[in-house]
Amino acid sequence: MGGLKRIAILGSTGSIGQQTLEVARVFRDKLSVVGLGAGGNTRLLASQIKEFRPRMVSFNGSETDLRRRLSPGHTSLPKMATLEEMAAHSEVDLVLIATSGKAGLAPTLAAIRARKEVALANKEVLVMAGTMVMAEAKKYGVKIRPVDSEHSAVWQCLKGEQKKKVARLLLTASGGPFLRYPAKKLEAITPEQALNHPTWKMGRKVTIDSATLMNKGMEVIEAHWLFGLPYGRISVVVHTESIVHSMVQFTDGSIKAQLSRPDMRLPIQYALVYPDRHFNPDLPVMDWDKAMALNFEPPDLARFPCLRLAREAGVKGGTYPAVLCAADEVAVEMFLSHRIRLADIARLVEDALEHHRGVRCPSLDDVLEADAWARQRAKKWRNH
Amino acid sequence: MGGLKRIAILGSTGSIGQQTLEVARVFRDKLSVVGLGAGGNTRLLASQIKEFRPRMVSFNGSETDLRRRLSPGHTSLPKMATLEEMAAHSEVDLVLIATSGKAGLAPTLAAIRARKEVALANKEVLVMAGTMVMAEAKKYGVKIRPVDSEHSAVWQCLKGEQKKKVARLLLTASGGPFLRYPAKKLEAITPEQALNHPTWKMGRKVTIDSATLMNKGMEVIEAHWLFGLPYGRISVVVHTESIVHSMVQFTDGSIKAQLSRPDMRLPIQYALVYPDRHFNPDLPVMDWDKAMALNFEPPDLARFPCLRLAREAGVKGGTYPAVLCAADEVAVEMFLSHRIRLADIARLVEDALEHHRGVRCPSLDDVLEADAWARQRAKKWRNH
Repeated sequence: MGGLKRIAILGSTGSIGQQTLEVARVFRDKLSVVGLGAGGNTRLLASQIKEFRPRMVSFNGSETDLRRRLSPGHTSLPKMATLEEMAAHSEVDLVLIATSGKAGLAPTLAAIRARKEVALANKEVLVMAGTMVMAEAKKYGVKIRPVDSEHSAVWQCLKGEQKKKVARLLLTASGGPFLRYPAKKLEAITPEQALNHPTWKMGRKVTIDSATLMNKGMEVIEAHWLFGLPYGRISVVVHTESIVHSMVQFTDGSIKAQLSRPDMRLPIQYALVYPDRHFNPDLPVMDWDKAMALNFEPPDLARFPCLRLAREAGVKGGTYPAVLCAADEVAVEMFLSHRIRLADIARLVEDALEHHRGVRCPSLDDVLEADAWARQRAKKWRNH
Repeated sequence: MGGLKRIAILGSTGSIGQQTLEVARVFRDKLSVVGLGAGGNTRLLASQIKEFRPRMVSFNGSETDLRRRLSPGHTSLPKMATLEEMAAHSEVDLVLIATSGKAGLAPTLAAIRARKEVALANKEVLVMAGTMVMAEAKKYGVKIRPVDSEHSAVWQCLKGEQKKKVARLLLTASGGPFLRYPAKKLEAITPEQALNHPTWKMGRKVTIDSATLMNKGMEVIEAHWLFGLPYGRISVVVHTESIVHSMVQFTDGSIKAQLSRPDMRLPIQYALVYPDRHFNPDLPVMDWDKAMALNFEPPDLARFPCLRLAREAGVKGGTYPAVLCAADEVAVEMFLSHRIRLADIARLVEDALEHHRGVRCPSLDDVLEADAWARQRAKKWRNH
């Protein structure tokens, strides 16, 4: 490798964005943060600018406020840019897409077309527009680097192996905090309970999606696109300890697994410095001097219908996964603002999928239209 | 790859040898058995010759008996050869060394010097003469292929990874059938109890070595030579289920593990067809539709002193590991013939190591001399 890799972080004030900066802080000799893209968190973005001095910034909030936050330290405001401009900029080597929802779609396509290294932490990009994004990636010779711990695990297990010798991917799922809750009790879960994930430190949306296993369902779709395997060869295995991040089973029956203490900074770092590995004193190390049990069990599809819904949407393809994403996003918002129950999320999403009239080979416009349609329908949904 | 790989199996009537032939039987289009080397099992060797029609045979028993066994099927006796001749023969591509004890040493060196692919199932070769064997392997550009499930797992986990990024090897140990036995009860174990291993189908010597963890200790020494890591970076983890066959921890804290249902035919096959993988209908496949727990714990060195003794012999180096091997071989024989107790094995081996005057950079003669000395001392050992 050698030399300084110039990175742009799209979604720098989110959970993944912040952890990416923690990694960049450790490897100042290897990684240079040249671009930051953020939503409306002025205070945090200002402190990131002060520390990392990027050349470009994309910001949805008030430029005046941001300037005011910077002035006490005499830090000048970096050049303002759109996410797409930053993703395609000549001074960027790697673009880390950690925005949430469909906001990551256009910058991902821009980064691919500019032949950047693309590290993808945003699930929706591939779930919504997998056909299109993978076709562009192929056209421009870009290999998308996964940031999700599960896909990073698969990616690591595939290193040095032939893809045609892969028999099955085994994506592990923590099962969320309600794995053992009876269906009845699942109905009454509050947003506060749901936001308390046992092992991973994540954003609110992802945490709820983990509790419903919708997150895992979307990861199945993502894995389908990233690794080019049919849905019948992608399994989900519940593994409550979140130590084994995923596995690959090969044609000879041999399985490779990737393990670590759960910490998103490891897959983030791997995506940034791949194919290399570096010691990072901040990363936790497994302690084999203590007894440990790793448990595995099949997921209960009856209790976690979102997993089934996502797989069905994936198999149907076209605009169905975009509808799944959009309906779920609205549903999670409605749950977090106490307007629907946790179990209603699946009902709402299923309603949208059932009534959607899909487009088989969608354009970007088709995807965005399906997204808008699903949001509108979802917002009107009531539990009967 | 393509083409037929011509293999010679040294130790064909032993457990590993028989399982190697089971693999060869499945892949008749890829593997051709051209040589068989056996001890004194005339009946089994004759049936192997009838089925696989090797060009060469090495046999310690009576040639007349063997000829008589072959004649009813009108199978002619193949050319007789020594193990070394077979290992270096121009019509052999790969030599699988599955002889036990020091009998594998000379043929391994012969195969290396003839630049064959060498698949090593015999532990003693590297434990007794690691310095010499690895120096020859380096000189002739031969990469030794491990057959042991643990070393095969490490080898598989290292595929595509840089060796300098390896932080630690984690060799798993089933812990043997007496893992939970109190030290007092360990004293009274009978050979019959000890031969009843819970998960692996193996030869008698290896089964006893598994019960004392001497086997694991020797594997630590073997791993040291195969993967070029200092002893301080090779750990043993007890894993009773024998599903995770070993792991590699990298500098970034990421760990790769290799898993499968325990069946020696998988690592044997991997060593034969590496770097490829092939579907083998005879190999068991993991069933993820059932709940499963994988347990890990540190080994209790106080109760399994052989593990400590092996590691100490490895660190001392020179002729000490050869003494460990030889003394252990005698001790296991004495245990199996009811002359000493299970716990005496460690005492006998420790006595030999304590009284040995080691040679630092041994020649083959030094190794064989240390071996003879240790055997002599071991045979005279009595529990005081």
